[in-house]
Amino acid sequence: MTRTVPTSPPMRRSTVADQIRELILSRGLRPGDALPTESVLCETLGVSRSSVREAVRTLATLDIVEVRHGHGTFVGQMSLDPMVQALVFRGVLSPGDNLRALREVVEVRMALDLAVAEKVVAAAAGETHPELRALVDEMLTHADHGETFLDADRHFHTMLLESIDNQLAGQLVGAFWDIHTAVLPRLGLALPEDLRQTSKAHGDMLAAAEGGDVAAYREAVIKHYEPLQRALDHAN
Amino acid sequence: MTRTVPTSPPMRRSTVADQIRELILSRGLRPGDALPTESVLCETLGVSRSSVREAVRTLATLDIVEVRHGHGTFVGQMSLDPMVQALVFRGVLSPGDNLRALREVVEVRMALDLAVAEKVVAAAAGETHPELRALVDEMLTHADHGETFLDADRHFHTMLLESIDNQLAGQLVGAFWDIHTAVLPRLGLALPEDLRQTSKAHGDMLAAAEGGDVAAYREAVIKHYEPLQRALDHAN
Repeated sequence: MTRTVPTSPPMRRSTVADQIRELILSRGLRPGDALPTESVLCETLGVSRSSVREAVRTLATLDIVEVRHGHGTFVGQMSLDPMVQALVFRGVLSPGDNLRALREVVEVRMALDLAVAEKVVAAAAGETHPELRALVDEMLTHADHGETFLDADRHFHTMLLESIDNQLAGQLVGAFWDIHTAVLPRLGLALPEDLRQTSKAHGDMLAAAEGGDVAAYREAVIKHYEPLQRALDHAN
Repeated sequence: MTRTVPTSPPMRRSTVADQIRELILSRGLRPGDALPTESVLCETLGVSRSSVREAVRTLATLDIVEVRHGHGTFVGQMSLDPMVQALVFRGVLSPGDNLRALREVVEVRMALDLAVAEKVVAAAAGETHPELRALVDEMLTHADHGETFLDADRHFHTMLLESIDNQLAGQLVGAFWDIHTAVLPRLGLALPEDLRQTSKAHGDMLAAAEGGDVAAYREAVIKHYEPLQRALDHAN
């Protein structure tokens, strides 16, 4: 029944990585700030060059630092990319489970989209958004030609969520968009047939948000996922 | 305006890591299965031992493989730990921003808890759950003694969400629990004063779920976060 609760970031190994994190914190460095050079880090932490290199690689994989070759090492953006990588792989790995992993990703995406509905509508209400409208038109045109529109789709969701006062929620929605888009073709699943419904639903989401109508926005979000959910149902 | 959409897992570098992923996929290996030995990997992929080692380290950081020293390398659980690590660090790093990062984490946690409300209630309705009830009693006892109860709290949420048919949602709730619990003390924030309200709210969540009452469950979830939100408000 006992469970260990992490009171510090759960570390798998490498106390040098820990020391570098502490150095970032104690010096008040922010994303984009330069870290000391490799030799200075060796000296400051009293460890070998190879230990520093390994720790930096681990931290780079986690997006906690960013190595710009020829320029040095910088504090990273701590994005959700590491999670995206692990979950894409998990999604691809479990096609045998009735596409369970992908279904779960889609459910979480929809839950997050519905959860931020009020914030999105509050941010968009009473204004027009020509850039978002242009993306909807782009999707509608592609749909008319029977073409997919992943770029415009991703861009639409990203831009819509940039307006809300919770960056993390926006990033999560984007991360789960990436995961499901990456997993879909690898499972040999066709993209949703009903491109028209998907593109139109984006327009409805925008119109509802601009009109300040949370209920209509939520309805459009649900309609927006229907073609995808049908594709998942047919895949069984 | 152009955005690249990943159609394969976004890789930062190391095509050897890519090759190992492909090997896992093509051989149909599952989490827990053993990978070929280092020497076999070198031979199969036609790369040096140091390249294999670096790729394995990267994949281990992402929880895509797991190195058990003295036993070999195995397919990992692809957990959300890498994301937890990055987000804990991000949360700790931005105390200057009016605790914005932590506030966002708490909002996302609550959104996820509310999003899975129907599933939790559907899974729990009409039955009693002595283990969950025991955890609530444990929390109430601690609260009566003015003690915190992180272990029981974490365990309660984990167990409640194990029952639903979306593992990912459960894991996300757990991950965000870990993030906010890890960030809280590092920001020098006191734990919520009102331990009594928090412990009681867990009991209300359980009673509502067992009673099949989704609205009451949602209300208890919201009440459950109030002390924490007050602590965040006072910290400004």
